[in-house]
Amino acid sequence: MPVNDDWLIEAAPVPEPGPGEFTVRMQLISLDPAMRGWLDDRPSYLPPVAIGEVMRAMAIGEVVSSQHSGFAEGAIVLGTFGVQEYAVSDGTGVTLVNSRLGTPSMYLGILGTTGLTAYFGLMELGKPRAGDTVVVSAAAGAVGSVVGQLAKINGCRVVGIAGGSEKCAYVVDELGFDSAIDYKAPGLRQALAQACPDGIDVYFDNVGGPVLNAALGTLAMGARVVICGAISQYNAEVATPGPSNYMSLLVRRATMSGFLVFDYAAEYRTARKRLAKWVADEALTAPETLVTGTVADFNDVLLRLFSGDNVGKLILDVRPG
Amino acid sequence: MPVNDDWLIEAAPVPEPGPGEFTVRMQLISLDPAMRGWLDDRPSYLPPVAIGEVMRAMAIGEVVSSQHSGFAEGAIVLGTFGVQEYAVSDGTGVTLVNSRLGTPSMYLGILGTTGLTAYFGLMELGKPRAGDTVVVSAAAGAVGSVVGQLAKINGCRVVGIAGGSEKCAYVVDELGFDSAIDYKAPGLRQALAQACPDGIDVYFDNVGGPVLNAALGTLAMGARVVICGAISQYNAEVATPGPSNYMSLLVRRATMSGFLVFDYAAEYRTARKRLAKWVADEALTAPETLVTGTVADFNDVLLRLFSGDNVGKLILDVRPG
Repeated sequence: MPVNDDWLIEAAPVPEPGPGEFTVRMQLISLDPAMRGWLDDRPSYLPPVAIGEVMRAMAIGEVVSSQHSGFAEGAIVLGTFGVQEYAVSDGTGVTLVNSRLGTPSMYLGILGTTGLTAYFGLMELGKPRAGDTVVVSAAAGAVGSVVGQLAKINGCRVVGIAGGSEKCAYVVDELGFDSAIDYKAPGLRQALAQACPDGIDVYFDNVGGPVLNAALGTLAMGARVVICGAISQYNAEVATPGPSNYMSLLVRRATMSGFLVFDYAAEYRTARKRLAKWVADEALTAPETLVTGTVADFNDVLLRLFSGDNVGKLILDVRPG
Repeated sequence: MPVNDDWLIEAAPVPEPGPGEFTVRMQLISLDPAMRGWLDDRPSYLPPVAIGEVMRAMAIGEVVSSQHSGFAEGAIVLGTFGVQEYAVSDGTGVTLVNSRLGTPSMYLGILGTTGLTAYFGLMELGKPRAGDTVVVSAAAGAVGSVVGQLAKINGCRVVGIAGGSEKCAYVVDELGFDSAIDYKAPGLRQALAQACPDGIDVYFDNVGGPVLNAALGTLAMGARVVICGAISQYNAEVATPGPSNYMSLLVRRATMSGFLVFDYAAEYRTARKRLAKWVADEALTAPETLVTGTVADFNDVLLRLFSGDNVGKLILDVRPG
């Protein structure tokens, strides 16, 4: 687990934009499980954040100074601006927040990487069909909560796996899942078999470890297993065992696939419109946990992801009170 | 490992066919890794062979007595006749051997479940494209040897993984693989990385265990991992760890799928014609190891599959000398 002493808070003058650039004042900083992986010094889908670099983070901010024709002062923008109060950008990878689609915080959650990850992972890899049994782990988390609701919208039976009875009640009562299983209670495998008498058609995994293994042991014929994350393993200091039940893929003629949401960037616009419409229609709620603070609070807020101490999208709100 | 005392050899009168039935006298009995799984008392893609039942086996035999219009006396047939000298059948699941396509033993190997498993697993799940790097484990085995040759026919670079320098030399010199790795030598992961500088596009797994894990750590973007078997695990008495490198599926946007050849039964005829043509064209050789004996030798011959003591398709030849 990262500790406060792993970070250095540096003061610097507010940067001035050069030609074709603009300066952003940060408002909302996204906290994501993937951040933990970026701290490990090993090759992955993005290079690690090097010692001395600004910590990588998606964030929402306001353009406060601009020499870029596409981003006027006052515009609210989404980008990988990092854990800092101000950032200069040339607009690469920056999205203008469209207030008709949603609020700025929604652009970090349901309309941001979180919601898009749920959308593309479920729809493109999970291929849910009406009547399918869909199981999602970390069901009260930012991605899991959206996956389950999207599966309901698509006519599926949805079982959430979450830690503790409170979160289990939340996904059923507030998010409309059909049932929920507390993975901290004994008998996970039996509970899954009971909740899924015809087996699991789509399993969307955010956690890895024993939960993934139990789900692999409960697959229906032709099941699709979507590997989105493995939060139970991110802070492990020794290589944890893989899912010993992987041979179910053969017996059940099933598929286990991984994906990264960035590969679907060309389709983000369409997906955002759909997600925004479902939110407007109240078919989809987008839980958020906003924590007010400063960049100095980053580590404390990050740790909430791993302690399971939040519901929905976790955001550090650095707007001056 | 099964031992001789696990089996009972029973004598019985040669069965007479009833109306719509025929009697087969066995000639060749197929030995397959899957047989080990059928002996475990747990649900799988087929029910276990119960205590007291005839051991399940694919076999080739001659129709010696018939009351079935589709199967005349003298016909050579392929079916799941079991480890016995005579069997009665109503023709369900029985295939007439077409001598223009191949010899009877080829119907257990390259034109039988073995060759068809290689064909459908590689072509349907592996989706090889010319220039792809294809890696296959148990490369000198019945399925692996065909997979590698089919990948070569499809313009791929092929790396075999096999046990011992003799088998490695065999797959390169006799089967035309581009290179081979001895998994018993140290440094498997490094050897794989060296043999596959651009990563593995298709990994066809017959063995499971550390070999599968090493391959998962060496995937190219968009790789396809085909789970065909896990022979290293079939006799394990404790649940062996799963592949801890499965998160490579995410980083590499890869897919790991299982399959059973029976699902492609409707396409067997087309596949057999293609395989037979490649054999006739000498693009494909179909290694076989025929062991002469009786049904009493079944267990001894079966064990050769797990000791790695055979090349290509292993067959028990029970024709009277």
